[in-house]
Amino acid sequence: MVVRTLLCKCLLALLLSVSAALAADPLPSWNDTGPKKAIVAFVDRITQEDTPDFVPVAQRIATFDNDGTLWSEQPMYFEFIFALDRLRALAPQHPEWKTTPPFAAALKGDLKGAFAGGAPALARLLAATHAGMTPEEFDRIVRDWAASARHPKTGRLYTEMVYQPMLELLAYLRANGFKTFIVSGGEIEFIRAWAEKVYGIPPEQVVGSSIKTIYQMRSGTPVLVRLPKMNFVSDNAGKPVGINSHIGRRPIAAFGNSDGDLEMLQWTTAGQGVRFALLVHHTDSAREWAYDRRSPIGRLDKALDAAQAKGWTVVDMKNDWKVIHPFEMK
Amino acid sequence: MVVRTLLCKCLLALLLSVSAALAADPLPSWNDTGPKKAIVAFVDRITQEDTPDFVPVAQRIATFDNDGTLWSEQPMYFEFIFALDRLRALAPQHPEWKTTPPFAAALKGDLKGAFAGGAPALARLLAATHAGMTPEEFDRIVRDWAASARHPKTGRLYTEMVYQPMLELLAYLRANGFKTFIVSGGEIEFIRAWAEKVYGIPPEQVVGSSIKTIYQMRSGTPVLVRLPKMNFVSDNAGKPVGINSHIGRRPIAAFGNSDGDLEMLQWTTAGQGVRFALLVHHTDSAREWAYDRRSPIGRLDKALDAAQAKGWTVVDMKNDWKVIHPFEMK
Repeated sequence: MVVRTLLCKCLLALLLSVSAALAADPLPSWNDTGPKKAIVAFVDRITQEDTPDFVPVAQRIATFDNDGTLWSEQPMYFEFIFALDRLRALAPQHPEWKTTPPFAAALKGDLKGAFAGGAPALARLLAATHAGMTPEEFDRIVRDWAASARHPKTGRLYTEMVYQPMLELLAYLRANGFKTFIVSGGEIEFIRAWAEKVYGIPPEQVVGSSIKTIYQMRSGTPVLVRLPKMNFVSDNAGKPVGINSHIGRRPIAAFGNSDGDLEMLQWTTAGQGVRFALLVHHTDSAREWAYDRRSPIGRLDKALDAAQAKGWTVVDMKNDWKVIHPFEMK
Repeated sequence: MVVRTLLCKCLLALLLSVSAALAADPLPSWNDTGPKKAIVAFVDRITQEDTPDFVPVAQRIATFDNDGTLWSEQPMYFEFIFALDRLRALAPQHPEWKTTPPFAAALKGDLKGAFAGGAPALARLLAATHAGMTPEEFDRIVRDWAASARHPKTGRLYTEMVYQPMLELLAYLRANGFKTFIVSGGEIEFIRAWAEKVYGIPPEQVVGSSIKTIYQMRSGTPVLVRLPKMNFVSDNAGKPVGINSHIGRRPIAAFGNSDGDLEMLQWTTAGQGVRFALLVHHTDSAREWAYDRRSPIGRLDKALDAAQAKGWTVVDMKNDWKVIHPFEMK
């Protein structure tokens, strides 16, 4: 039985790889411009056995930021939208929120007002929407939201607002022996709830910000409970720290889109041997959004300077991508 | 090239799986007693497609404690021995240690004296031996130690003091689609330095205690630096928390040997569907050590009661294992 299953799997893997290799193009949604050429050249280089640049499969680690790199992040981070939707769903049980900041402002959709209280306000919103349940319960809440909530501009499910070229890139890297990880500033369990289905990235390959979790007995049953307290912030300098903690190896390729990814790209490219760093530059106001140095969401300023100084690859979404979202292809 | 490599890999994997399946016994160092039968029955049960107990490959997560479960832990945890060896190596640069507790006692081999100061003393020893360098530098220090330090009783390298039956069990589970993780109270980077070579477990599948790490620029180069401050303790209730943080799925099988593993086994077996929990009971004073309820190292007391109450599998090392360490086979 084991043998037959393995045989089937082997033949299937072989068939897929042969058909992938015979296919004209592993990255069909990418124009034949610089970024695509740079990606293919990098992969060709590190997979050539018996050359100095060859990288063994076990060390082919690639890390991807999520917001703005794998899916859209406008008009605000989708996890914020989830939190506001969650507040609205819980509001009937919390009549006091109508008169309590930051909830009152948030429930009215007044984001400026909601976040006016800074980090403590954000912490209260996070506590009210992300804590007080088991990871399994939170997983269910996020899945239900992802299966029904719609983006205000496109009317699509948020999980449909992923980038088709990046899905192809994930598949292309995995077909070449890479293990692909998400390294996001978003909360780790929020991403895990849908990343396997949407990106093919399993929970154990998601690195993110996290809140404290404790183990306790609940009516004789051991459970984990999510507490209203930050545990780790996986952004900026937190990204290399989170990568080291979860993966224990330095990536050979890293992909981001904002200043929050700068340290991840710096640390990745500072490793020995061939390294690859890429930034997605949002330049397409028609098909997506155009923003960079002055955007409050996904600001790309210092990292753009660093990319120019160090020769990192920069994707110009408007000119380098044939398609942005998968639904454009239907 | 990619196709040829994949073809070779597929054929090799297939050949290995066929020869493994044809071999009479995937667990040759286990006697045909209860534990071996229970392990094989569990694996058979969750791998039968089209049955209610079938578990998809992605959910086949198995977690293993390290000290006393995968390698020996007497006369004291090997990481303590590493720390003492490291203190001795650094002592010439720290003449003040000769008169400063807990270093003075530790350098004399007086462990009782060294640990008399409790947690603060332990923290000082940890800081002196595990912090102040990059993860890469620490990795090199541990590798050098593992390649040369010898166990006081057997004269073997510490990495030779792993359990042959557990190596077979790891391979058997992996051959049946399991992803195998270490979940240890030991420091995560200490284990990562040799776990891939010794157990075939890559760094990203090691969960452990950790110290704080920060990202900083060192002469213009970005580095991570290990700080003399605990970050996370992966023992007792910390094990389920660490598993959730790193893996994001509840294991379907967990393996331990002491009260420090109790919560991991409780949480694992509280999941829905078929679950497996096993304790290694050290009962062989001739080939290894015999200890349980009153041992300061690897105490097995409450977890042994829980195993009896819940029907978890308990390995009686003396009677269930033909061989303890691989070197007995040579």
